Amino acid sequence: MAQLRIALAQTNPVVGDLAGNADKLIGWTRRAADRGAHLVVFTEMFLTGYPVEDLVLRTSFVDASIAGLEAVAARLAAEGLGELPVVVGYVDRAGLTHRVGQPKGAPLDAAALLHQGRVVMRTAKHHLPNYGVFDEYRYFVRGDRLPVFRLHGVDVAVAICEDLWQEGGPVSVAREAGAGLLVVPNASPYEMNKDDVRFALCARRAGEAGCALAYANQVGGQDELIFDGDSLIVSAEGELIARAGQFTEELLVADLELPLGSGQPGEFQVDAEDGTTITVERVVLSEEPLAYPAEPPVIQERLDDRAEVYQALVLGVRDYVAKNGFQSVILGLSGGIDSALTATIAADAIGPDRVHVVLMPSRYSSDHSVEDAEELVRRQGLQARVVPIADVVNAFEKEIELTGLAAENLQARVRGMLLMSLSNQHGHLVLTTGNKSELATGYSTLYGDSAGGFAPIKDVPKSLVWELSKWRNTRSTPPPIPENSITKEPSAELRPEQRDTDSLPPYEVLDRLLDDYVEQDLGREELIAAGHDPELVTRVIRLVDTAEYKRRQYPPGPKISPKNFGRDRRLPITNRWREG
Amino acid sequence: MAQLRIALAQTNPVVGDLAGNADKLIGWTRRAADRGAHLVVFTEMFLTGYPVEDLVLRTSFVDASIAGLEAVAARLAAEGLGELPVVVGYVDRAGLTHRVGQPKGAPLDAAALLHQGRVVMRTAKHHLPNYGVFDEYRYFVRGDRLPVFRLHGVDVAVAICEDLWQEGGPVSVAREAGAGLLVVPNASPYEMNKDDVRFALCARRAGEAGCALAYANQVGGQDELIFDGDSLIVSAEGELIARAGQFTEELLVADLELPLGSGQPGEFQVDAEDGTTITVERVVLSEEPLAYPAEPPVIQERLDDRAEVYQALVLGVRDYVAKNGFQSVILGLSGGIDSALTATIAADAIGPDRVHVVLMPSRYSSDHSVEDAEELVRRQGLQARVVPIADVVNAFEKEIELTGLAAENLQARVRGMLLMSLSNQHGHLVLTTGNKSELATGYSTLYGDSAGGFAPIKDVPKSLVWELSKWRNTRSTPPPIPENSITKEPSAELRPEQRDTDSLPPYEVLDRLLDDYVEQDLGREELIAAGHDPELVTRVIRLVDTAEYKRRQYPPGPKISPKNFGRDRRLPITNRWREG
Repeated sequence: MAQLRIALAQTNPVVGDLAGNADKLIGWTRRAADRGAHLVVFTEMFLTGYPVEDLVLRTSFVDASIAGLEAVAARLAAEGLGELPVVVGYVDRAGLTHRVGQPKGAPLDAAALLHQGRVVMRTAKHHLPNYGVFDEYRYFVRGDRLPVFRLHGVDVAVAICEDLWQEGGPVSVAREAGAGLLVVPNASPYEMNKDDVRFALCARRAGEAGCALAYANQVGGQDELIFDGDSLIVSAEGELIARAGQFTEELLVADLELPLGSGQPGEFQVDAEDGTTITVERVVLSEEPLAYPAEPPVIQERLDDRAEVYQALVLGVRDYVAKNGFQSVILGLSGGIDSALTATIAADAIGPDRVHVVLMPSRYSSDHSVEDAEELVRRQGLQARVVPIADVVNAFEKEIELTGLAAENLQARVRGMLLMSLSNQHGHLVLTTGNKSELATGYSTLYGDSAGGFAPIKDVPKSLVWELSKWRNTRSTPPPIPENSITKEPSAELRPEQRDTDSLPPYEVLDRLLDDYVEQDLGREELIAAGHDPELVTRVIRLVDTAEYKRRQYPPGPKISPKNFGRDRRLPITNRWREG
Repeated sequence: MAQLRIALAQTNPVVGDLAGNADKLIGWTRRAADRGAHLVVFTEMFLTGYPVEDLVLRTSFVDASIAGLEAVAARLAAEGLGELPVVVGYVDRAGLTHRVGQPKGAPLDAAALLHQGRVVMRTAKHHLPNYGVFDEYRYFVRGDRLPVFRLHGVDVAVAICEDLWQEGGPVSVAREAGAGLLVVPNASPYEMNKDDVRFALCARRAGEAGCALAYANQVGGQDELIFDGDSLIVSAEGELIARAGQFTEELLVADLELPLGSGQPGEFQVDAEDGTTITVERVVLSEEPLAYPAEPPVIQERLDDRAEVYQALVLGVRDYVAKNGFQSVILGLSGGIDSALTATIAADAIGPDRVHVVLMPSRYSSDHSVEDAEELVRRQGLQARVVPIADVVNAFEKEIELTGLAAENLQARVRGMLLMSLSNQHGHLVLTTGNKSELATGYSTLYGDSAGGFAPIKDVPKSLVWELSKWRNTRSTPPPIPENSITKEPSAELRPEQRDTDSLPPYEVLDRLLDDYVEQDLGREELIAAGHDPELVTRVIRLVDTAEYKRRQYPPGPKISPKNFGRDRRLPITNRWREG
């Protein structure tokens, strides 16, 4: 046996910022060197950021990634870090001749080993995910190599992200190759409860690979995706050795006791047990095993379920604001729970002094609405102003006659326009305050309450909006959200005495049905068999199906479930299919 | 040799309308029977419509498709059409056990042969397109069969759409199977000049298959996609035998002289020359060759380039309106060329009496703008009203102080809101009038001129807007578009003396650069090498890259180019990548 101190760099790259990500790589490698690490592992496509989508089809982008990798390898050496091996993800190309159906330029979701100023080994993801938010058959060709490098006598193999999630491939080949440690760069997006799945998966794959497994995951928000970090190391027996925190940048350092490698340098081919063949390439960096006093490993505590979701939303907002170059946000505050929670998340993300709220009462706004909104502003110290909408609404209605829903929508749109105008004038990002239950059923106004640049609770069903609000109120004193905003009956206040339940079933009934229809994809008969009221099933299916256009126009927002109505669920607008 | 009269049903299914599409199948089969056809070929996924996107991941949807196929086979027989063999596309499933990365339920982009009330043979698309607007690795598993049925002595094989576009697979296997005719159901979307490519492709593949080839293509608009029809039949030597019109429903009937088949019924396996093996299945429907007096074949004339694009846009609007259940459209008429062309396309699509236009002059609107708009209304007989925006703009500006771009945007947004309000009140679909040059560079106002439900000229660069307008003016008397709208200098008229060239380079320069950057994906250095001004390249790349969010919020519109900023071009919003 031999020892290795491994450092997993759980960091936050920016898509497309190759120079900034390279700087980050240098900085974190220096931190790892300072901690005495023998190996640093960065995340999947760290140099380019992930996901880059169609950028990868640009020749110039792939060229820049490859050149950037070589430059950063040289720079590590120039800055005195060349002796510390670094595994990092980037984009490469396979160099195949073009075929119809193969992505232009044959890009690879690649990873490389950098050492002594050089790119020593290169590999690429073998299993490509192509479901949910992933379209990787569009972007990448499959890798077919397993690099193994001997470091202080230990054979370290490299696989990438999805290679863990599918059967066969690099994991089974790692066993054949006699690896003592499998390191895995990941960019694996957050979903509620994914941390449990992830640990179980790593434990199982370690058993299959017959060696310890080090899982380094990206952290941070990128458009709709939130990466939660949660990097971890398991032993060959599947025991948890070390684990990083969730939603924070962290260098996870652990001392591992690992078997010595014995194979010869060179290449050989292995049946990957998935219908393909993988070439194992083994090189030797250093044979001498190390022995030193190990430090106790870090195992960060897991957040509880509510804290986890809340932190995901906070991180999503913080990074969307920062990575898009905004300094501040603006949103409409109605006194209701959706805008109250959205404002609170924003204040937690970027500080209350950068959160601008606008109270826009109309003739139908109740007194308590305004009071509740003002109370929230006081408790959190937000930047507030009041803009009554009555005169603007009247000006419209002098020009065109509007009744019923058209008149209701007008009020929502006047508010949306006021926010957009203030955004244009002052440079704030407009936050949209709609929740997932509304978005699913189309209970919102196009260009009204759905206007904006980012929608923090887009993927949060109304029931969970209440839960998160109550949870957040237990976390600081005074509670940031006025109790009245949580307990009062929901209303859009677009006509006298309006209640959400005029148009929708009670949210606890609706949310259960929406989950079964949207997330679980159950058909009409299955929904009824699951105990949902048949009439309600018919009504809700129709609402959901016909709201597709509205949803497509909705701003992006942090994804916390399998389907947030983003790129994870793609339906035609023109669609006559009705369940049953 | 033997004769066969084949009928290609170039028709217009509706996505998800399984009952309606089945009715259509019965009706068109009856027409084919009345014409004495011996075989009818419908298009790809005709029973379900194409593309159905994530609908195909619903168990209930696939169940309904399979049941619908069997029902329509029985119904053909019940209605006295059972003796006429029908080839039709639908969705089936492969019945594989679930694997990670394989689409849920293992759906197949299938086609079947219906005869005497039964489903006689089933097959599925072998080559799956996964680029541009296609995501078929997400939706389908690969088919691996080539059905061959002997009809009056002739062996007829079936392949599907993309099977023609890639090397190897069903085409090469058809030769091995000794087919006398290869029939190919398609749902192949329109792009400018695709008809030339299509004919050349069919001629080449007929040569490779060693037999005549009958290509039946869908026609009609489905969200952003326009299917142009252009069904055709080529001989084994690649000569054009018959060709249907573009953008119209048509039953293309042709008498073919074909070789007699000689193989035995049963199954055998063939190397598909693409790394896979395909099972050929041969059945015999009838051995007796036919001889009868042939009718002269139909070869419809091709539209010229301008007419072709214009018809595509008209069909796109007509079908989006009809298939989404609208009766009428509404748009803002500024007196400029974009709204003039959009209104003209709409009037050609659904009739001028269903086209409502709103003139919304502001303090910055020039007299000639209003006059040009009124002249267009008179010439075409549109439904017009005038709503001045000054008082509404003033009402906003009394509540919040706006300057510069924020004040300009406000005017555009007041117009967008007026249109949306009138849409809500009267049920019109709002047409958005922006062109592709604006969309590419972000020269539009979010929730202002970009508001609406469908954007007819979204994929038309400004230069082509002018060309199409001039062309359309040559097609009827009086010319529908006032000459002044075509010749005057473009202006958004949001501030005094504003000109588009204040913000953008001349459109003829801009459009060439945009084509190279957006369609051809050239990088900065390549653009400069291609002769574009370096400073302009830098500026336009920045404009295009930073307008991604705006484009995502834009309504869909008919796709006529490789990249219409729809599902064919997917980029992150947060993106720090800058060419060069």
